[in-house]
Amino acid sequence: MKILVMNCGSSSLKYQLIDMKDEKVLAKGLVERIGIDGSILTHKVNDQKHIVKQPMKDHKIAVKLVLDALVDKKYGVIGSMSEISAVGHRIVHGGEKYARSVLIDEKVMKAIEDCIPLAPLHNPPNIVGINACRELMPNTPMVGVFDTAFHQTMPNYAYIYPLPYELYKEYKIRKYGFHGTSHRFVSMEAAKLMGRDIKDLKIITCHLGNGASICAVDKGKSVDTSMGFTPLAGLAMGTRCGDIDPAVIPYLVNTADMSINDIDVLMNKKSGILGVSGVSSDFRDVESAANSGNERANLALNLYYHRVKSFIGAYAAVLNGVDALVFTAGLGENSATSRAAICSGLSYLGIKIDSEKNNIRGKAQEISTPDSKVKVFVIPTNEELMIARDTKEIVENSRK
Amino acid sequence: MKILVMNCGSSSLKYQLIDMKDEKVLAKGLVERIGIDGSILTHKVNDQKHIVKQPMKDHKIAVKLVLDALVDKKYGVIGSMSEISAVGHRIVHGGEKYARSVLIDEKVMKAIEDCIPLAPLHNPPNIVGINACRELMPNTPMVGVFDTAFHQTMPNYAYIYPLPYELYKEYKIRKYGFHGTSHRFVSMEAAKLMGRDIKDLKIITCHLGNGASICAVDKGKSVDTSMGFTPLAGLAMGTRCGDIDPAVIPYLVNTADMSINDIDVLMNKKSGILGVSGVSSDFRDVESAANSGNERANLALNLYYHRVKSFIGAYAAVLNGVDALVFTAGLGENSATSRAAICSGLSYLGIKIDSEKNNIRGKAQEISTPDSKVKVFVIPTNEELMIARDTKEIVENSRK
Repeated sequence: MKILVMNCGSSSLKYQLIDMKDEKVLAKGLVERIGIDGSILTHKVNDQKHIVKQPMKDHKIAVKLVLDALVDKKYGVIGSMSEISAVGHRIVHGGEKYARSVLIDEKVMKAIEDCIPLAPLHNPPNIVGINACRELMPNTPMVGVFDTAFHQTMPNYAYIYPLPYELYKEYKIRKYGFHGTSHRFVSMEAAKLMGRDIKDLKIITCHLGNGASICAVDKGKSVDTSMGFTPLAGLAMGTRCGDIDPAVIPYLVNTADMSINDIDVLMNKKSGILGVSGVSSDFRDVESAANSGNERANLALNLYYHRVKSFIGAYAAVLNGVDALVFTAGLGENSATSRAAICSGLSYLGIKIDSEKNNIRGKAQEISTPDSKVKVFVIPTNEELMIARDTKEIVENSRK
Repeated sequence: MKILVMNCGSSSLKYQLIDMKDEKVLAKGLVERIGIDGSILTHKVNDQKHIVKQPMKDHKIAVKLVLDALVDKKYGVIGSMSEISAVGHRIVHGGEKYARSVLIDEKVMKAIEDCIPLAPLHNPPNIVGINACRELMPNTPMVGVFDTAFHQTMPNYAYIYPLPYELYKEYKIRKYGFHGTSHRFVSMEAAKLMGRDIKDLKIITCHLGNGASICAVDKGKSVDTSMGFTPLAGLAMGTRCGDIDPAVIPYLVNTADMSINDIDVLMNKKSGILGVSGVSSDFRDVESAANSGNERANLALNLYYHRVKSFIGAYAAVLNGVDALVFTAGLGENSATSRAAICSGLSYLGIKIDSEKNNIRGKAQEISTPDSKVKVFVIPTNEELMIARDTKEIVENSRK
């Protein structure tokens, strides 16, 4: 069974074609600048790149070119489109409706539309992408995999905010959490690497990319996570502030004469590691500035580590202990320095890092010492594979 | 040496006269409705109340009546005002200027004034109260004890927000923390009860009143605390929301058509336990509603416990372990149910509560079992005594 995985942004589209026999990626690629001058498709088979440059006025044309590339005589990987058994779509927001992935039908499309106010930048291009695929592959089953779904198992006392309850009923303001597909994937992989049933494990997963979140996974279920109503909450990130005293916002409006929309942009685009360091939102730049003696860069890193560590501690309390700690995504997979700094003050949990094992990038590996009470792992995330696995399972079950 | 402790609010004034020989409270009282119709002074000696009802147009008149009460032939406790060796004033905000209590002079008055933008509701009445005392007791030394001072030992990575650094430099936006006098007092008392030097201890102090905050105390110094730029941050409280996804605020402005000032009031006055339960901001009411089957009251309590527990976990990580956990203030001193609920899921830290010992109210006592790895205490806070101790020490040192 071959599954096409799609992730549509407002002017971009990422895809992978995965053969589920051995979970091998047959081809993958990226379309950029859809609807903008200079549209470009980069299609990769093994390590070979094929570039298609032609105007793409909408996502339908982009999807068509992706399908053409997949069946292309020269650089295609399948004989015909009928080899694609199903398409799995990444969808950012499923609201409270979806606690798992789902076969897409009209009712599901309506529900994704209903969630637009909760994810105004993300759900609309997701919908456009699904519609384009449905038009071009009317007989191929489509599955929706939601970033929020994994966190729907949180208990109400973890997802309700201490605000007037009416804001939840009327405006759906609550913690949803994001990166769910990634947290689910790496927690399952950790259980596999441990040779244990995930139902017996307490796992804390740290998805530390440019966006970053932490998740408390109890018996395979998310019971708390650091992102909230939106992906702004929780940890400090590349350009996002994460949790701050909410009273800062009225203070800025009243004292600094900023509009609420200025502040929204400031919190999302000018804060985090970039805002504190004044250097960059990219950790590599900030690390190298800190190494050259830049004090604010150093402060930004220490602040970042402090917050990650605090959340790990908080979730150890939420779980009443922890069996495994997992690092994933850009920084989590690639920065041995950051992992070491974060784990350095956690010996009270019995966490011990083996500095030699920790010296890896982008490879699934245990990095704790044999006597570490908590197993610590680096596990590259693979949301596409998780989407493909869900899609396969749902399509197979729907045939039964 | 007899010390008068003063705590001035906008229309109120609390005082205690403490004999430092044995730290006994000779008299204490409360003036209410200063500058409003119906001004009233309630003066207590032992358990005897004396009420004075007369117009008090300003704090100076109120302070005068307090001094009169203290030397009154019938219900006074000192022969003359000259017996008052010094006055200790509670001051809410000392900004970054004061990391400890200080003898008040013109320079200090100026600094307290400079902090008005940071505490617009609190510092002005504090100043009015100090000025009234200075006029009436021109030769008596006055000491300022700041709610923020204890937290000035936090490292910069704990107090800087992941916002553009300019907001710190230009608008002084950072974490200050509050309840410092209380956290300092109960952490010192905990060390005494343990018969240990506080310099060898990691202590987490939970000040759980209508306002609530948690503090990580390392070797006697605050290294992190849950309140922030203002007392809104951190835990859920009686009517305050504590930490929420900051993106909720722009969302409410844009979607619910609320003004930023409406939201400010909502977060400070209509949220927390009151907002979630819809019942009350008083825990006793909410506990009794929950016991009668009110689901939202039950949710409010569970949410509250969850947040306290998460902060305890976070600070265990910040401290890399914990030797003692202290509960204080209204709920912390009086609700055995809450203490039990908060500690119930913390066995991973080696916390074990003795349910019989826990069944106390307002009394300093260890409530953990003998084999509990972390000692857990109930310690009634006594900010007035802490202020008096600081005042005594500073006045004595100034004479050397």
